[in-house]
Amino acid sequence: MSYQIAVLAGDGIGSEVMAEARKVLSAVEERFELAIEYSEYDIGGAAIDNHGCPLPEVTLKGCEAADAILFGSVGGPKWEHLPPNDQPERGALLPLRGHFELFCNMRPAKLHAGLEHMSPLRSDISGKGFDVLCVRELTGGIYFGKPKGRQGEGEEEEAFDTMRYSRKEIRRIAKIAFEAAQGRRKKVTSVDKANVLACSVLWREVVEEVAKDYPDVELEHIYIDNATMQLLRRPDEFDVMLCSNLFGDIISDEIAMLTGSMGLLSSVSMNSKGFGLYEPAGGSAPDIAGQGIANPVAQILSAALLLRHSLKLESAAVAIEAAVGKALSDGYLTGELLPASQRANAKSTSEMGDYITKLV
Amino acid sequence: MSYQIAVLAGDGIGSEVMAEARKVLSAVEERFELAIEYSEYDIGGAAIDNHGCPLPEVTLKGCEAADAILFGSVGGPKWEHLPPNDQPERGALLPLRGHFELFCNMRPAKLHAGLEHMSPLRSDISGKGFDVLCVRELTGGIYFGKPKGRQGEGEEEEAFDTMRYSRKEIRRIAKIAFEAAQGRRKKVTSVDKANVLACSVLWREVVEEVAKDYPDVELEHIYIDNATMQLLRRPDEFDVMLCSNLFGDIISDEIAMLTGSMGLLSSVSMNSKGFGLYEPAGGSAPDIAGQGIANPVAQILSAALLLRHSLKLESAAVAIEAAVGKALSDGYLTGELLPASQRANAKSTSEMGDYITKLV
Ligand SMILES: CC(C)[C@H](C(=O)O)[C@@H](O)C(=O)O
Ligand SMILES: CC(C)[C@H](C(=O)O)[C@@H](O)C(=O)O
Repeated sequence: MSYQIAVLAGDGIGSEVMAEARKVLSAVEERFELAIEYSEYDIGGAAIDNHGCPLPEVTLKGCEAADAILFGSVGGPKWEHLPPNDQPERGALLPLRGHFELFCNMRPAKLHAGLEHMSPLRSDISGKGFDVLCVRELTGGIYFGKPKGRQGEGEEEEAFDTMRYSRKEIRRIAKIAFEAAQGRRKKVTSVDKANVLACSVLWREVVEEVAKDYPDVELEHIYIDNATMQLLRRPDEFDVMLCSNLFGDIISDEIAMLTGSMGLLSSVSMNSKGFGLYEPAGGSAPDIAGQGIANPVAQILSAALLLRHSLKLESAAVAIEAAVGKALSDGYLTGELLPASQRANAKSTSEMGDYITKLV
Repeated sequence: MSYQIAVLAGDGIGSEVMAEARKVLSAVEERFELAIEYSEYDIGGAAIDNHGCPLPEVTLKGCEAADAILFGSVGGPKWEHLPPNDQPERGALLPLRGHFELFCNMRPAKLHAGLEHMSPLRSDISGKGFDVLCVRELTGGIYFGKPKGRQGEGEEEEAFDTMRYSRKEIRRIAKIAFEAAQGRRKKVTSVDKANVLACSVLWREVVEEVAKDYPDVELEHIYIDNATMQLLRRPDEFDVMLCSNLFGDIISDEIAMLTGSMGLLSSVSMNSKGFGLYEPAGGSAPDIAGQGIANPVAQILSAALLLRHSLKLESAAVAIEAAVGKALSDGYLTGELLPASQRANAKSTSEMGDYITKLV
């Protein structure tokens, strides 16, 4: 069997960490005798510079021809003066999500043993560890709801956005959350604002319906404001958090930061056909780009997720994850994961990649 | 001069902590020779039980006749089965905010010296302390925007909410944030999601305009997802956070939890005429209601805010705040603020109230 991956490295540290992911993928290809073809396309700021827009037609066509997208990161100060719609992040990610109907976003956040000190939480809280999966609806809600715009003049001029969810949209993402929970600790926490939003009232109704098909999974509802708080006090009590688009944006970032090690987190955005976009949780980190110090692990783990979910190559995915696990427990770490006193032992981006490649 | 306060104690611990606030107010009346009249009304669950709805006409009329509302807290398991619109919190608070156009909500969250261990943050982060004021728009945005409802049938049935902001609405709350910052550390962080929401793009525009009138105040913009994260890493770098209704709901709860001592936090919700509703940050805490262990400080500080903002009695407000400060530094604390090993020294609700009353 042969596979096609569209590689969209993007801006900032994107190309550096992507190079390491490619090394690891080559090793996996060899070991598992796979034939993977890679096609590289411009995206984000790089695409603005080269083609005048953050998601050029050629990039979109390239993605359409592929089995999956391996995404780096986009954005940086160079493009921040542009109008919101033309900026790299918004102009690349949102249209890709919409075009391929990548409605299902999964963002896991686990506090790795030995890295508890990285968490901004008090040691007695982080000491218990946590392992939360945010399942976020990604193509609906207030991100894409119509009408969206402006009207009126002078001080009466107003802007409006529409949050909108159908039963169908809620049901398909809820199912994924319950299925994920079955393979984990069997608990779904559905995040909403049902005391204020009509969308949340429908959300709760449909989630309750879906829950009936998964009697082995416990379901609880929590308001977004309270969720933000409880994650700070008792993150270990959450398993799968099921969120609408906007609330998932907030919760997934909160749990990522609670691990304190964003450079280790990757995510999946999938459609109903298994086509997906795989990307690291952290951004393009322009402040450290080009220095060879960025952590490539999140990008490497994104490749593992791609193999698992879009190419259905479970053992290849496991091989990468095991190699990463071994590297970390061997103390192979980039600088941001080390206390100041141990920074001299920091591995560079390519040292990390090489080591993991060898272990695959 | 004589003043009228509408007292809405509500549910759970509401009546216990309100009793202490009343003791303190009496002492202040005597010391400053004030004549304050109090009228008590049912609200929330108590009003559902006695009148069949969470905000009865008689309560609303009573509030209209008063100079300010001293609010306790509402809600509890007894009323959770009710439809969202009829529940105590939503059915009491939202209509009061709307009726009196209480557009300006101010929620301060300060980590008190000596109480750093209460914060869920790592000690090197909480050790720096923080003092954040959330200025939240309270009568607009997705809470009140029309249309809001449902349409369609079967799996196509959908719910919708409208986020809506006019220049006028944004300008009046932004001004308050900048004025507050002038009396503090002169920095405003405006929280939005301008990479996705049309409302946020307008929000940014108007906030930039307002900023020109306050050249001594530094302005920065931050996306809500990033704000949620940065508060965990460097809360000490924030001063005033200016938020729309929904984002302020989330941010104010996050910063409250970051102090770890919600029982000390109070808030103001005001209109343009200085009429306001004053309430503690914590909820009705039904789990500890009736045990005489709830912390009355937040309710007592709400009374101080009321004296300051609605009755313009600055020195009376300061007297209460000083008394509270003295009580806390004397080690007068309710149980939830003490490490388990020192719980034997915990003061009861009424002991706290009596001590503060004596100090006024
Ligand atoms: C860049 C932005 C539009 C995006 C979002 O809000 O979804 C990002 O924050 C994310 O979470 O992937
Ligand atoms: C009870 C609820 C409607 C309310 C809100 O969302 O504003 C509460 O969470 C608050 O922050 O005062």
